[in-house]
Amino acid sequence: MNEAPLITLTTDFGAADGYVGAMKGVVLDIAPHARLVDISHEVVPQNVRQAAYVLYTACPFFPSHAVHLVVVDPGVGGARRPIALRTSRATFVGPDNGVFSYVTAEDTTEVAVELADPRYRLPEVSHTFHGRDVFAPAAAYLAAGVRIEELGPMVPDPAALPLPRLEVACGRIAGEVLHADHFGNVITSIGRLAWDGDELSLEPAFRPEVEDRDRVRFQADEASVAVADLSISPIHHTYAEVEPGDVLALVGSGGHLEVAAREGSAASKLGLRPGDPVALSWR
Amino acid sequence: MNEAPLITLTTDFGAADGYVGAMKGVVLDIAPHARLVDISHEVVPQNVRQAAYVLYTACPFFPSHAVHLVVVDPGVGGARRPIALRTSRATFVGPDNGVFSYVTAEDTTEVAVELADPRYRLPEVSHTFHGRDVFAPAAAYLAAGVRIEELGPMVPDPAALPLPRLEVACGRIAGEVLHADHFGNVITSIGRLAWDGDELSLEPAFRPEVEDRDRVRFQADEASVAVADLSISPIHHTYAEVEPGDVLALVGSGGHLEVAAREGSAASKLGLRPGDPVALSWR
Amino acid sequence: MNEAPLITLTTDFGAADGYVGAMKGVVLDIAPHARLVDISHEVVPQNVRQAAYVLYTACPFFPSHAVHLVVVDPGVGGARRPIALRTSRATFVGPDNGVFSYVTAEDTTEVAVELADPRYRLPEVSHTFHGRDVFAPAAAYLAAGVRIEELGPMVPDPAALPLPRLEVACGRIAGEVLHADHFGNVITSIGRLAWDGDELSLEPAFRPEVEDRDRVRFQADEASVAVADLSISPIHHTYAEVEPGDVLALVGSGGHLEVAAREGSAASKLGLRPGDPVALSWR
Repeated sequence: MNEAPLITLTTDFGAADGYVGAMKGVVLDIAPHARLVDISHEVVPQNVRQAAYVLYTACPFFPSHAVHLVVVDPGVGGARRPIALRTSRATFVGPDNGVFSYVTAEDTTEVAVELADPRYRLPEVSHTFHGRDVFAPAAAYLAAGVRIEELGPMVPDPAALPLPRLEVACGRIAGEVLHADHFGNVITSIGRLAWDGDELSLEPAFRPEVEDRDRVRFQADEASVAVADLSISPIHHTYAEVEPGDVLALVGSGGHLEVAAREGSAASKLGLRPGDPVALSWR
Repeated sequence: MNEAPLITLTTDFGAADGYVGAMKGVVLDIAPHARLVDISHEVVPQNVRQAAYVLYTACPFFPSHAVHLVVVDPGVGGARRPIALRTSRATFVGPDNGVFSYVTAEDTTEVAVELADPRYRLPEVSHTFHGRDVFAPAAAYLAAGVRIEELGPMVPDPAALPLPRLEVACGRIAGEVLHADHFGNVITSIGRLAWDGDELSLEPAFRPEVEDRDRVRFQADEASVAVADLSISPIHHTYAEVEPGDVLALVGSGGHLEVAAREGSAASKLGLRPGDPVALSWR
Repeated sequence: MNEAPLITLTTDFGAADGYVGAMKGVVLDIAPHARLVDISHEVVPQNVRQAAYVLYTACPFFPSHAVHLVVVDPGVGGARRPIALRTSRATFVGPDNGVFSYVTAEDTTEVAVELADPRYRLPEVSHTFHGRDVFAPAAAYLAAGVRIEELGPMVPDPAALPLPRLEVACGRIAGEVLHADHFGNVITSIGRLAWDGDELSLEPAFRPEVEDRDRVRFQADEASVAVADLSISPIHHTYAEVEPGDVLALVGSGGHLEVAAREGSAASKLGLRPGDPVALSWR
């Protein structure tokens, strides 16, 4: 491996305690030249779906030799397996609780293994902090060039979360709220949408096997979004097209339908939460 | 460029989402050896003045080959230009909305350009996340050694915010609250003050053309600060000179007059907010 | 020094201001190749004991050439000395207010010095931000290979906090709450406990001179924890052994007795705060 070792970190540990620091210490003790990049440590505690979404938004932009270390692990110490898996775009290390479902729905899993070999763990493994004792060492050894197959036996069936709702029918796409971000922008499962002049086309997210992009195509100014008793129309390109405070629908930076309030929080204004239904329809 | 490429990041993205991570992925894909340093991701959303202030406090301490990447960008996707600019002390990349005003008031802008050349952007540019698609690539290419003039046409007139209030009259300086920090210390526009024994002298901040340092000079124990219906006197050197909880005036670490409460929050105690008037007078 | 210079940072500065960024700029100007790792910037303002605890949890996992830079410094500008100290496991830089007490209780201090030599400070030292002007330069020079003895005169008696309560009697250990973490897990001073089958043994934390590990040994299922009017029994291995929401006692990842609520906050449920009494007893 010629590239500088690169490890990202995504956890629900918050920023106040020494837990993330301990993990980084472990990594740097094993792989002194590893580059460490924080993706998020503010995942809501034990919220595996939110972590899956955060990975989905950030990981595709990293070089493919990156190792993405994820510790949102409500089942630590229980029966869930610790795993590493590799796709064509990246390597992932974390608990086998479905947290990698969204990234692996977008890209084929080439190999997944259980982190079973004690040579690639700390000498003493606690019952409550596998992030430090199991996952961080595994990520460090992988980043330093150890082959994933060395870490343990194959896992043919990594755990999977149900994929976000996305039902395409004639003239209508039904989905759900995926995430409300720091700005209060509400990202939905309706994606990926792409602009082509004044038209929008859909390439279904999380479902690479579907190839019906050409079938779903509509004029943005003939489309409307139904969410929280509101009907929002048309679909805009950017926040600046409406007045400050106004609610609008647009295509977000990940290609997903987004409901936003210019310079305000649509999530607060509309009381939206993950799982709430949303539909996009057109004439 | 012989130094290791160095890029700092200042945004209003918060720490929970994958947005900062995506930007760092983009940078490391282009400039694998770039050193990344977070300045702040907790700028209040869309608060360009606060971002300008944060840059002003942190950037002067970095080596001059640093590229400071700033994304506080309420006008994303609208008419505002994406720019890069270079002063004798640093290079800056971000939206042309005045966010660089305070640093460029302190130092001459040598060159500013619009980020127009598509070679230095991601292949697909979204309408809502230029931080990832335009600014991060530009910063990465600059840090990796691309000349700023390559990125696009010259911008002769970068946008400027009104500079903070600072009016020097006989025996009195009028200013305003600039910022309340994490501790609740209230930093004002009255600066830069420097100690010389028991005397203080003023070298007006943000106004390098003024050379009247010798004119404004006074005894610290004959000075008083008027703020929020209080008169605070004298001006202290450090927090430890008063009792815990007491409000005091002192010269902060950036040379600006500061109102603080020892081991407490002056901002809360006095209800002070950015823009509130403050005056320093002496006999 | 052949290893890449490595500096960690622990402060009470929060993430919003430019203060941490300024410190990092100072470090990188002096030691361009230093690796910077944040441990925490969310220590409660002026809470020296919390910072001491955070260091205690994270620092042991770093390589021994790491320099741990700590700025929780309510006495800045007053009489407290700025110091650096070295143990066999690490080097520390910060105010001499006892913040290093917990790590030095675990490991012998080989040398401590006052940061007195102006060559290893910024040219201008403010009265209110020694983190930037004194501690960051010292850490950078140490990481870059300057010998600790160069920085100033020996300090034979670094300040010490009272160590956390830990009283071992026949069949009972009395301690106190040390910390409530991001998850609401309550870590106590009763440690370090180690599992040996179904038995637990105690090696007293912060007191390396005590060698009575063999004396204190008991069955986990015969032990109970008294805290906040509750009696919790037995001591579990991991969160997954109880139902979501249930309160349990277990041995945390640092070997300390911990009171937790599965997928919830024991600190909120039980109203526990640092200093509250806790006792472990067995038959």
